[in-house]
Amino acid sequence: MSATALVGIDWGTSAARAYRLDAGGQVLERRDLPIGIRHVRDGRFDAALAKLIAGWDVRVPRIASGMIGSRQGWVEAPYVECPASLTALGDRLARAPHDELAIVPGVVTHDAAGIADVMRGEETQLLGSVGRNERVLAVLPGTHSKWARVEHGRVVDFTTFMTGELYGVLIAHSMLGRLAGHEPGRFMRDAFSRGVARGLAGGELLHDMFGARTLALTAGLRSEEVADWLSGLLIGREVGAARAWAQRAGIDASHVRVIGADALADRYELALSDAGIVAARGVADAAAHGLWRVALHAGIVTAAVEA
Amino acid sequence: MSATALVGIDWGTSAARAYRLDAGGQVLERRDLPIGIRHVRDGRFDAALAKLIAGWDVRVPRIASGMIGSRQGWVEAPYVECPASLTALGDRLARAPHDELAIVPGVVTHDAAGIADVMRGEETQLLGSVGRNERVLAVLPGTHSKWARVEHGRVVDFTTFMTGELYGVLIAHSMLGRLAGHEPGRFMRDAFSRGVARGLAGGELLHDMFGARTLALTAGLRSEEVADWLSGLLIGREVGAARAWAQRAGIDASHVRVIGADALADRYELALSDAGIVAARGVADAAAHGLWRVALHAGIVTAAVEA
Repeated sequence: MSATALVGIDWGTSAARAYRLDAGGQVLERRDLPIGIRHVRDGRFDAALAKLIAGWDVRVPRIASGMIGSRQGWVEAPYVECPASLTALGDRLARAPHDELAIVPGVVTHDAAGIADVMRGEETQLLGSVGRNERVLAVLPGTHSKWARVEHGRVVDFTTFMTGELYGVLIAHSMLGRLAGHEPGRFMRDAFSRGVARGLAGGELLHDMFGARTLALTAGLRSEEVADWLSGLLIGREVGAARAWAQRAGIDASHVRVIGADALADRYELALSDAGIVAARGVADAAAHGLWRVALHAGIVTAAVEA
Repeated sequence: MSATALVGIDWGTSAARAYRLDAGGQVLERRDLPIGIRHVRDGRFDAALAKLIAGWDVRVPRIASGMIGSRQGWVEAPYVECPASLTALGDRLARAPHDELAIVPGVVTHDAAGIADVMRGEETQLLGSVGRNERVLAVLPGTHSKWARVEHGRVVDFTTFMTGELYGVLIAHSMLGRLAGHEPGRFMRDAFSRGVARGLAGGELLHDMFGARTLALTAGLRSEEVADWLSGLLIGREVGAARAWAQRAGIDASHVRVIGADALADRYELALSDAGIVAARGVADAAAHGLWRVALHAGIVTAAVEA
């Protein structure tokens, strides 16, 4: 076993992923457990952590990001206001009680109407994925997708879309899900792209989603296509709205970095392509890189040359 | 018992309402039963109908509208293309097998993208609610709200919004419902209007709905206000989008007729008022009036003077 310099944990609502990093910030080992904060009973985060990193060197520093720092987590970490730099995040780490675990703050911004928007965990992935000399428009697809402007090691601004959660509840519980049937099948590329086109057209979503029903009724959409058409509709809307959001800030939205490694990220790449946007994939283990960088800025670890 | 001239039935997915009408088209009696087509087993619509109108004169003509004419109903009635007149509806009645029940066709239109939109039952309420010399922009609030232009006894065009269904699945199954808690409380007028204002502003719904979470997090919205804020957001969006839809057709959208008599219709009146639109309530028993008028045009009943 190579010498561990830092244990980093991406600890979310449904799962936790732990990384063992060496003195150069490279990932030596990773572990996943379904012990997200929702699954931890009676506040026994200490026991959950012990299970997650069992057998690892207990003397090295530990740092976590994500919902572990929320009100429902181990200890509530503050929100750092945008633009949020690595230095600001490192300066405002919270500490789990009776444990040497540092917890990265969340980030808060306000939209045009003055309503707050928040992230916990994504800031770490963003700052792990984007180099200190880059200016990037990035998306983290998910239950609550985040689009962010990351510039020179700072999260300048971001906006959240409930795309994944809305898709999930509509398929599981609405008329649209009944139309789609309940057997996930192979990906229907054509139906997805037709949905994306509809979403990019920027109509009224409350109306457009009803289109799945009428298309199914008029034989414009087969039952097995309904789910992917709806997925495309929602992702297409998100892409269109996020592009407009970036452009309102004077940002070039012709290139987007997709941070994620799953089938959902693949869908986003397709939708971006349909929208004429060039997509690039972020590095793997973005959270590990981000945790390493925050730890460096906080003085928890030191490195001759930052990765 | 006054002499019955027509039995009219508004037969939807979850409930059926039967009307006994006299020779002047006036409602003598009404009955509600929870025997919507979803609750009728093994296609026994004849038994359901017998139960619904038990004791009424079996010799008078019967006419029904709504989902009873859908593929899942008793017999599939056609869709009449917009603009759909009383005459066109009367000319294309379907007939239930082995029963003298006439079934009013649905209506179909196509939106700007060429995607079909459909209604079954609402066309009858609309034509029952709007006089033959009127030009009206009308809304039928509901699971799938319909906005329609009704002019001179014709449904000229309409558009559907999945507002009610989306609200229902979000409150029952999403994070927003968990924030709201599960005890329906008294109506939170202020939170509703704040939601309406947000909806009328016409941002991206996938983003705006996440605002309920951040407002709750930052103490901008109390738990008991979340549901009404979300209701306002969705209805506000619908009102804004429907107004734009009417204006694109060159229609005056400063006055809207609200067809409905429940608490949901009250909410629409408030949202319309917040949008600076004058709301008027439609007549009660719009379906009964519409069924009477279709029956007259079809020659099923005759009247010296049409109501």
